[in-house]
Amino acid sequence: MRTSIATVCLSGTLEEKMRACADAGFDGIEIFEPDLLVSPSSPEQIRALADTLGLTLDLYQPFRDFEGVEAPLLEANLDRARAKFELMNRLGIETMLLCSNVGTATIDDDAAAADQLRRLGELAAGYGVKVAYEALAWGRYVNDFEHAQRIVDLADHPQIGTCLDSFHILSRGWDPAAIEKIPAEKIFFVQLADAPELSLDVLSWSRHYRVFPGEGAFDLVRFMAHLVRSGYNGPVSLEIFNDVFRQTAEDRTAVDAMRSLIWLEERTASYLKEHDGGTHYPMSLATLPSVAEPTGFNFAEVKAGNPDAVSALLYQLGFSFAGGHRTKPVQLWTSGAARVIINGQQAGGMEPGISALGLDVQDPQAAASRAVQLRARPVSRRSQADEQVLQAVFAPDSTEVFLCEATADGTAAWADEFGPAVQQGPGGTAGQPAQPLISAIDHINLSQPWQHFDEAVLFYESTLSLTPIASQEVPSPMGLVRSQVMRSADGGVRLALNIAPLIVESGPGGGEYPQHVAFTSTDLVATARQAAERGLQFLPVPANYYEDLAARFRLNPGFLAELQELNLLYDRDGDGEFLHFYTGTVGNVFFEVVERRGGYEGYGAPNAPVRLASQYLASRGEPKRKAG
Amino acid sequence: MRTSIATVCLSGTLEEKMRACADAGFDGIEIFEPDLLVSPSSPEQIRALADTLGLTLDLYQPFRDFEGVEAPLLEANLDRARAKFELMNRLGIETMLLCSNVGTATIDDDAAAADQLRRLGELAAGYGVKVAYEALAWGRYVNDFEHAQRIVDLADHPQIGTCLDSFHILSRGWDPAAIEKIPAEKIFFVQLADAPELSLDVLSWSRHYRVFPGEGAFDLVRFMAHLVRSGYNGPVSLEIFNDVFRQTAEDRTAVDAMRSLIWLEERTASYLKEHDGGTHYPMSLATLPSVAEPTGFNFAEVKAGNPDAVSALLYQLGFSFAGGHRTKPVQLWTSGAARVIINGQQAGGMEPGISALGLDVQDPQAAASRAVQLRARPVSRRSQADEQVLQAVFAPDSTEVFLCEATADGTAAWADEFGPAVQQGPGGTAGQPAQPLISAIDHINLSQPWQHFDEAVLFYESTLSLTPIASQEVPSPMGLVRSQVMRSADGGVRLALNIAPLIVESGPGGGEYPQHVAFTSTDLVATARQAAERGLQFLPVPANYYEDLAARFRLNPGFLAELQELNLLYDRDGDGEFLHFYTGTVGNVFFEVVERRGGYEGYGAPNAPVRLASQYLASRGEPKRKAG
Repeated sequence: MRTSIATVCLSGTLEEKMRACADAGFDGIEIFEPDLLVSPSSPEQIRALADTLGLTLDLYQPFRDFEGVEAPLLEANLDRARAKFELMNRLGIETMLLCSNVGTATIDDDAAAADQLRRLGELAAGYGVKVAYEALAWGRYVNDFEHAQRIVDLADHPQIGTCLDSFHILSRGWDPAAIEKIPAEKIFFVQLADAPELSLDVLSWSRHYRVFPGEGAFDLVRFMAHLVRSGYNGPVSLEIFNDVFRQTAEDRTAVDAMRSLIWLEERTASYLKEHDGGTHYPMSLATLPSVAEPTGFNFAEVKAGNPDAVSALLYQLGFSFAGGHRTKPVQLWTSGAARVIINGQQAGGMEPGISALGLDVQDPQAAASRAVQLRARPVSRRSQADEQVLQAVFAPDSTEVFLCEATADGTAAWADEFGPAVQQGPGGTAGQPAQPLISAIDHINLSQPWQHFDEAVLFYESTLSLTPIASQEVPSPMGLVRSQVMRSADGGVRLALNIAPLIVESGPGGGEYPQHVAFTSTDLVATARQAAERGLQFLPVPANYYEDLAARFRLNPGFLAELQELNLLYDRDGDGEFLHFYTGTVGNVFFEVVERRGGYEGYGAPNAPVRLASQYLASRGEPKRKAG
Repeated sequence: MRTSIATVCLSGTLEEKMRACADAGFDGIEIFEPDLLVSPSSPEQIRALADTLGLTLDLYQPFRDFEGVEAPLLEANLDRARAKFELMNRLGIETMLLCSNVGTATIDDDAAAADQLRRLGELAAGYGVKVAYEALAWGRYVNDFEHAQRIVDLADHPQIGTCLDSFHILSRGWDPAAIEKIPAEKIFFVQLADAPELSLDVLSWSRHYRVFPGEGAFDLVRFMAHLVRSGYNGPVSLEIFNDVFRQTAEDRTAVDAMRSLIWLEERTASYLKEHDGGTHYPMSLATLPSVAEPTGFNFAEVKAGNPDAVSALLYQLGFSFAGGHRTKPVQLWTSGAARVIINGQQAGGMEPGISALGLDVQDPQAAASRAVQLRARPVSRRSQADEQVLQAVFAPDSTEVFLCEATADGTAAWADEFGPAVQQGPGGTAGQPAQPLISAIDHINLSQPWQHFDEAVLFYESTLSLTPIASQEVPSPMGLVRSQVMRSADGGVRLALNIAPLIVESGPGGGEYPQHVAFTSTDLVATARQAAERGLQFLPVPANYYEDLAARFRLNPGFLAELQELNLLYDRDGDGEFLHFYTGTVGNVFFEVVERRGGYEGYGAPNAPVRLASQYLASRGEPKRKAG
């Protein structure tokens, strides 16, 4: 599949955009006219740069408001087209996008529009240019791709064909199956865009909220399947108007874009294999190493200049010190299958924060290879000759994601590099053995920069086969926090991605928002009692919360009193119950312990505002959490 | 009119919200239940704080999903209500908001709903509580305020009445005239919200995009008029769910909110005076000193640690040095009626930036008094005994807005404090006299922090009677820039408020976005030629722009060549033509010169992307303009 992308998807100058597209591996680009008009580079210089970068210039776009007009305006439009055809010759671009008329059309007559397109085709022939006519979803008379195709058929000129755009087709609810009826040689170009489900007017939806394939709600796999069956074998190009991408560094947007196309290509290949068997089509589709869902968390890693505050929390939660790494200032703490690494290879002043997570997968090599083919950046950590070689890639927020070999007994081979395990408290003090009530990592919550949120969801879905579930918004004293859970089907891996309010992002102090690791306990009350005895400072929960809990649920008064005494939170739904508590925050990290009873699959969302408000109060002394 | 506001409008803790509301001058507040639940303060402590602050606690809200349910659920709901009534007694709140059932209603029968509300009323009576029933726009069976009122009438219980919410009424297109048919004593509460015109589903629209009265598209004056005619005399309360307000400092949001209510009150009084003459209603409405639109710009002021770069630009544009201030390191430069003050009373390293603007008004004292009553902060500048006393207030972005006395001959009395005028170039060099081709300030363009944009529009509209015209979005290499023009009817004063992309705001270097002053010229080509001779570095315009200009407009080739030679930009519409050019940027300020031909009323918006891209290129060396 030949990949392409419109320059309007990216920020920066035209030259910066072109370099980013080449670096991300695109075959070609569409030049969005305004990007050229504001550029000091001549058309010849742009053409030469594309040659140097190995990019084809696939489309000049868009030309607007041509057809369906009265005779004098038609002549002016042809003059305008001539100037653009001359420009395209200088650029070496053979195809021009013509959008169905929005502003100046006064004649609602297919035959007249076709006559005018034929005039344009005759002019275009003199320049060796082809015109791809596209039905805009909000076109004045033409807003349906089959209608546009009828006009192209009527025009019956070799230089006049069709441009298909998934947004304009799917946003209006047109059935993409009709693509298969279009002769492949008349499909001059294809543009892809996804979009979230929004009941917004179609123009605003298109201009501001398009996203890359896989980041929205459109069924682009089926769209692509129809396209492949049509026999089309030209560029498949992304055209995404998105307010966020427009202000994000162009190199990472280009990588995100490329990832979306690679993944769509694979899913389309898989769909066609399933539905059409071995049928051969002109467009060849590449595939990727397939991977099963990860089966669980192998570990979580916290980086810290000074490990003592983190190790104290883990000790209080009943974790055991499993020893230091034999060559590095790194500690391992465990409880059941929950493993937490505290990485002290940092500058002394570095605040603790979550830096890496390990996932259990069937085939680490294949999983890493898949991720890298999806343009994930590999992590290279130096290791000694006799140490485990671990596969890892960077997530979009720079968290390192390790792909570890799942073992039948839940142990980790790399843990042998740590030792000896001794009864030790935090900071090397003598520790007391604890009951290991915590058995595993339940979920990890990572805050995401607002401008890379869609990218993060696509990353985890495409590389690791995690599934996004419906997102939620939770009020905090600093604004709404949007939370998106990505999980494996059996719940062995659950990641919660949060976008914090902007004010926090841009506040003084760098805008870190605390992240956390949640552990599973088989007996939350006992875990909390043990932690209290070991001196844990729980995140305090206000009395008003428990009064409301009493009003909402008929709880045993003794149980309610126990919850309140220990600062435990409670939720219930049709499937089961959820008990949980939070530790205080150290640096940018805190811990949660949860107990799931029955089939409860949530995360205590009704309690999240209580947590956020209590953390806000606790951090009031720190200037970075409050920006004016 | 008794003013009130729901705590959900503001960021922060409940206590912070209450203090901000008291400081802004509200009479009372509505306590939004989640704000209380997450608070460590007891209900008694909140009640005491309200007493101390002089705030009434007007409403407890909301109670949801009560009516239209089967018998067992009704009993559970009554239990839940009892707990909340007890809580309200502790808070000292007499009115509870009950939203029409969204989630649990199964019985679509008004008589049944009324019976259940009567049960609730009987329970409420025991606690001295009143229940205000409100039709949510997305209520399951009840989404129309007249329908809710029919159920209230059927319930026929003294503790059961109505809550009217302008959003739920106007967003659905219900006619607010029917408010007048409701007996005033049955209107237990009124909530106001405005909203922009969005074709979005009503729930998302309500939950994220509500704004304060005057900041949206609803006709709240007519809504208020119907309410006043109904005889209602209770609190008029703001209930605004807005993603931006939720993350903005609560003290300024509260001031913005109060300003919106004061202005709405005045406009309602004026509407009723016009339509109903001297009719007396129970609700008394306060008015403000009325002011006419400003008639022109009196001056613009640029602050700079070193004035030389700014004075050099003004000299090149043909301005004359009218002398230094007699007591302060401040320069005055003039050309025709265009006056620019360069204020050097700054730390040496301060980059030049627009700090103040002066407007010609009929009665400066009245205008300043009006602004201060609308909660604008007055500017206090020290001045000598024999200097002009100028009235000024801070705009939301901290620009100082001076209200100056308009004179018949266009001079400014304060200018006498400057002198002597000498032929002088920048930095005290000998200057040459220039033709004063620039005659006035055409417009001033101020960039606004994204979170205070709606506040700024309301500020200029309410305090200065400027009118907002439809906003535009302009692409830049760093994202879309939204531009909102505020102007006087005759165009004597035009302000363009821009929101820059967020990445710029949060980038390293503090996120200043350049602002500019545009001057009017009677002959732009001559002005540009003279400026070129005086050494002005024009903002460069790419050749591609002129080729496109030739394709779009049939321009005389000689004229086109002259435009290109001088880096002039051109636009044309049905009313006339527009020529303009830009200077380079010094610090955070640059200048524009414009010539309006015929009836052209725009600002060359099609050329704005060229300007933004060229400025982006020019600033590429400066790290603050490019954030990763």
